[in-house]
Amino acid sequence: MPELRKDPVVGRWVIISTERSRRPTSFVPVTHEKKKHFCPFCAGNEDRTPPEVFAYRPGGGAPNGPGWSVRVVPNKFPALQIEGTLDRRGEGLYDKMNGIGAHEVVIETPEHDKDFADLPVEHIEQILNAYRERAMDLHRDRRLRYVLIFKNHGAGAGATLEHPHTQLIATPIVPKILQEELDGARRYFELKERCVFCDIVQQETAENEGRRVVSTSERFVVVEPFAPRFPFETWILPRQHDASFPVLTDIGELRDLAVTLKDTLQRLNRALDRPPFNFVIHTAPVSEGESEYYHWHLEITPTLTRVAGFEIGSGFHINPTPPEDAAQYLREVAVEA
Amino acid sequence: MPELRKDPVVGRWVIISTERSRRPTSFVPVTHEKKKHFCPFCAGNEDRTPPEVFAYRPGGGAPNGPGWSVRVVPNKFPALQIEGTLDRRGEGLYDKMNGIGAHEVVIETPEHDKDFADLPVEHIEQILNAYRERAMDLHRDRRLRYVLIFKNHGAGAGATLEHPHTQLIATPIVPKILQEELDGARRYFELKERCVFCDIVQQETAENEGRRVVSTSERFVVVEPFAPRFPFETWILPRQHDASFPVLTDIGELRDLAVTLKDTLQRLNRALDRPPFNFVIHTAPVSEGESEYYHWHLEITPTLTRVAGFEIGSGFHINPTPPEDAAQYLREVAVEA
Repeated sequence: MPELRKDPVVGRWVIISTERSRRPTSFVPVTHEKKKHFCPFCAGNEDRTPPEVFAYRPGGGAPNGPGWSVRVVPNKFPALQIEGTLDRRGEGLYDKMNGIGAHEVVIETPEHDKDFADLPVEHIEQILNAYRERAMDLHRDRRLRYVLIFKNHGAGAGATLEHPHTQLIATPIVPKILQEELDGARRYFELKERCVFCDIVQQETAENEGRRVVSTSERFVVVEPFAPRFPFETWILPRQHDASFPVLTDIGELRDLAVTLKDTLQRLNRALDRPPFNFVIHTAPVSEGESEYYHWHLEITPTLTRVAGFEIGSGFHINPTPPEDAAQYLREVAVEA
Repeated sequence: MPELRKDPVVGRWVIISTERSRRPTSFVPVTHEKKKHFCPFCAGNEDRTPPEVFAYRPGGGAPNGPGWSVRVVPNKFPALQIEGTLDRRGEGLYDKMNGIGAHEVVIETPEHDKDFADLPVEHIEQILNAYRERAMDLHRDRRLRYVLIFKNHGAGAGATLEHPHTQLIATPIVPKILQEELDGARRYFELKERCVFCDIVQQETAENEGRRVVSTSERFVVVEPFAPRFPFETWILPRQHDASFPVLTDIGELRDLAVTLKDTLQRLNRALDRPPFNFVIHTAPVSEGESEYYHWHLEITPTLTRVAGFEIGSGFHINPTPPEDAAQYLREVAVEA
């Protein structure tokens, strides 16, 4: 059983993943070579993953067989385990609990060599909808407080499998950065009676501004944030206030998000020669889906620089690319229609 | 002039380092090859660095000439700039200030190919003393609130120069993780009227414990922390309560720290085949040097796994190696006398 443990000083929970326990000799350098290995995510290998929990099958067909366009399966080596009770307990001055949660994989396409950014908009919309469906379902589990949706693209960004996929990890605690955003947004709301993200959207798109804007659509604004940790860190912010990504009701929003996300990833690909990247959806936790002060959004971080001792040890980041410069590059780069 | 900018939601300051501004094309992959380039840190090249601010010259000799064992120089490409005023100001809802601070390099040895862990104890003690001397001096600048001392060892840990060196960055704000530690330690003290780090030392070394202890000496305890973010994350904790590293008065403490640090790095080298690593000294800020609740310590993080989207986007870490296992490996590994 994996274990959740809390640092007694800063209150940061970590997952000690005993199921994946690694000895010193097992830390081999990550290789960037294209592997010709067997891939459990490819079409035809459906029996080599745990049984699917969700799928799109445009032409019909039985579960766990071929014919799918997007398929969601439990992770075969989950960081957290779905069965059991939370069992919060102490160990002297320390706090821990069982590693209860869910860990699922959204297989984005049956094709091994496709890139997310090159998929048709309709297909990306299906993937986004799969995120929502799974997040909604996991939200029903009262033990779980957060569903984190994130994608690692490329070995340099931590992807261990090449086949395009996104991961969902549902946790019994609210992850640290999300809790900080919730706390910060709440403090801002108490002071101003306005959502800080709504204010960001307004300021960035004001008439005399736009220096950090990459693109805009009917429903979204794509910006380089004012204080980015990483070069070309890029946020997709909905114009309309909505705390939760999974409970979106406006169906046009998902289509617009698919268009916007594809366009943004293509700009990054062109400006930075197809960099490794991560994206994460930041959304309100299960219990605060109607929050006035929180505002869901998507954060993309290309992997261009190495996080070193300074950042790890202090949480302080040095970013060599002003966001105004990055936004200009991303605005100017030609993108296919 | 570099700029410090604050994220309006989570309150995280970042350095936008305009002096080092990088265009999209300049993000080349880091190479791990041994370079045969000219090295400005090697003996004989003293005129190729900015003039030194501190040095040990056991055999005498003039500043900025040969004969030194440890030498401290300003960074030629500093992340922060020493001249100017802080000039805190707003930009709509955002906050920023001038990038005032200091950025120095401790050149640990004249020899290019020496490893920190292989230096004699007396030499390591000189290096540690150079940290203290420079930190004490920088503390006198009223604009600066924190002096961060950190080392990147190996390209995999973010070192861009091969020659053994440590960096000091003095900042006009307290870096995020340090502020979190200070806040957390203060809350613990308010509740218990005891220092949380003192309690950790006591619990880890109690009679029925010791599962996370790597080694002990008269003045230090080396442990794998209860909730480590990374495999083989290792902390060196002073047994005696002292908030600040630079203001240590017990001179035996530096010698013992040199012995302990050398021993710990050698254990990591043997267990993990000379991994890239970072270490950071966590100490109270300038203004809280006498704090009852904070307790300086040194954190070592070998670079074994890649920080991916999950960690970057959530602050939540999955660690595949329980600290009890890591401590056992490090206890058992044979270390030269």
